[in-house]
Amino acid sequence: YEKVAVTVALGDGIGPEITRATLDILAAAGARIAPEYINIGEKLYLSGHSSGIAPDAWESLRRNKVFLKGPVTTPAGDGYKSLNVTIRKTLGLYANVRPCVSYAPFVATLHPKLDIVIVRENEEDLYAGIEHRQSDEVFQCLKLISRPGCEKIVRYAFDYARSHGRKKVTCMVKDNIMKMTDGLFYKVFQEIAAEYPDIATERYIIDIGAARLATQPQRFDVIVTPNLYGDILSDIAAEMTGSVGLAPSANIGEQIAMFEAIHGSAPDIAGQGVANPSGLLLAAVMMLVHIGQAEVAARVHNAWLATLEEGIHTADLQGEQSQQVVSTAGFAEAVIARL
Amino acid sequence: YEKVAVTVALGDGIGPEITRATLDILAAAGARIAPEYINIGEKLYLSGHSSGIAPDAWESLRRNKVFLKGPVTTPAGDGYKSLNVTIRKTLGLYANVRPCVSYAPFVATLHPKLDIVIVRENEEDLYAGIEHRQSDEVFQCLKLISRPGCEKIVRYAFDYARSHGRKKVTCMVKDNIMKMTDGLFYKVFQEIAAEYPDIATERYIIDIGAARLATQPQRFDVIVTPNLYGDILSDIAAEMTGSVGLAPSANIGEQIAMFEAIHGSAPDIAGQGVANPSGLLLAAVMMLVHIGQAEVAARVHNAWLATLEEGIHTADLQGEQSQQVVSTAGFAEAVIARL
Ligand SMILES: CC(C)[C@H](C(=O)O)[C@@H](O)C(=O)O
Ligand SMILES: CC(C)[C@H](C(=O)O)[C@@H](O)C(=O)O
Repeated sequence: YEKVAVTVALGDGIGPEITRATLDILAAAGARIAPEYINIGEKLYLSGHSSGIAPDAWESLRRNKVFLKGPVTTPAGDGYKSLNVTIRKTLGLYANVRPCVSYAPFVATLHPKLDIVIVRENEEDLYAGIEHRQSDEVFQCLKLISRPGCEKIVRYAFDYARSHGRKKVTCMVKDNIMKMTDGLFYKVFQEIAAEYPDIATERYIIDIGAARLATQPQRFDVIVTPNLYGDILSDIAAEMTGSVGLAPSANIGEQIAMFEAIHGSAPDIAGQGVANPSGLLLAAVMMLVHIGQAEVAARVHNAWLATLEEGIHTADLQGEQSQQVVSTAGFAEAVIARL
Repeated sequence: YEKVAVTVALGDGIGPEITRATLDILAAAGARIAPEYINIGEKLYLSGHSSGIAPDAWESLRRNKVFLKGPVTTPAGDGYKSLNVTIRKTLGLYANVRPCVSYAPFVATLHPKLDIVIVRENEEDLYAGIEHRQSDEVFQCLKLISRPGCEKIVRYAFDYARSHGRKKVTCMVKDNIMKMTDGLFYKVFQEIAAEYPDIATERYIIDIGAARLATQPQRFDVIVTPNLYGDILSDIAAEMTGSVGLAPSANIGEQIAMFEAIHGSAPDIAGQGVANPSGLLLAAVMMLVHIGQAEVAARVHNAWLATLEEGIHTADLQGEQSQQVVSTAGFAEAVIARL
């Protein structure tokens, strides 16, 4: 078997720790990947690349088309734009797929039946990055919603539901207020839903939808939603499973796909070796499926699950049984031992 | 004692049922108010007043300066703008104050220690209502944040915290993405926080902030946030107490104040006499305090609490003890019996 070249960025904060742990597990599991490292994030921002990324990194991404990305830190200050957003937009990664699953009783949660996939639009909305100063006292940000953008993400959600045996797609918007922008999103949702009579559909206004997610998550299956709502809903759903540190994401484009944890670079605990590598590891599992190594993916996922089931986890999680709290590296070793 | 003239709108859907129940309780409690009824909402929208409100209603509001409002329905269609938003903006009701409190064990909740006040900016943000068609395929909505708007709401939140014995104000924004608009909100928050050294402060990015609210609500006290986030956070917090039907709101301006439930007109259960009047009743309690009738307010609040404590409630709630599920009118009677 030939190895698949994968662009890898270690990232900032806890990034290097969790990315190394992830790569160690992948290597031990026999993943046929050849990492090609790029430098992005804090150091790049501060060394003259105001976007946080340099031309050779773009080349690597365009060449390999698969990207395993550690979390990065965007420096404070108006001059620095989020690199996450820059990469998603520049590479046309229109779908941000975020599965959130409870692992009760191995991970303590009030919501043991939570099993949701959030399909978040990933290029438009307030994230288009169009912000300006109208006067010293007034600032504006443009929320942008296009029909092609809505069509791509809604179709992705329905195709995902169908191919993953999911039964229902819920659309969440605020179209009672934003009749044109969110109204378009919901209109396209209805149009495309008609092509998938095998999938149930549902719509919530985002306020009460988020509230129901927070109280009765078992009601939901796949949720499709504009960018900003998806950002909020996915952190809610992930945290409800026990920790935002558990959830992975796949950022999917026509050509290129990026895999990352949904959490940030957590500078407050960086360098301590206590971070949970699970979000990035599960993102790597999604990546292995994406590049046709589903068996390796399953092996990694099962070993990860077995580790949790034996009560071994990092300090961010609470188990409901006799536990063993381990370091990032200790967790990786435990997973490797169970491959 | 003279009666205070209060403008009252019964509203649409479940509006008339819950508003009548509320007024019956206020009358029985000896509230010194003289309701002046206005027609707003669905019928007005459909009878030539495309804003959902007629000139004489505006006059009543401007004259009485106190408004008890049932929920209204905005008809579907691009031509109809939300009347809630129109009233808030037209009357300059800049602060939307939404206390959410758990009443465990009398109302079943996973979060018995939830006791949060959300102070939501109420005139700006995407709610400014500036939306337009760029082309057949692209629509835009303007998010607008002004320094005076931020100053008013942030100061309101700190003053509220101080006068209500609250210890902490948390700011939730997405200023890592919207550096100008949400950035301004947080900047103003920091400036004004410096004037209130007796109040602790904290900032969350809205994604992880909403996630923490959904999992550890006991961490929060007062939350101040732009309009749209406040809309979402308040439905989450209210629903987590057991039902969105429990939470009241006060919409406060320099001159005029409006009191309403945070829930909508719930057309699906309208006319059945099963709706929970608690959100509007507790809004009326806030109104009584506002017009200087704090003793009547306390009497109503205590009777309402005693009713719940005896296991008497409408069908939307779950109690944790022997229960008696009653109708809207039955609930009002039970409260009146306990005044
Ligand atoms: C870091 C930030 C730019 C990013 C986002 O807002 O999308 C993150 O919260 C996420 O959800 O991936
Ligand atoms: C009905 C709707 C316009 C309103 C809002 O979005 O503000 C409601 O959800 C609320 O929270 O009062």
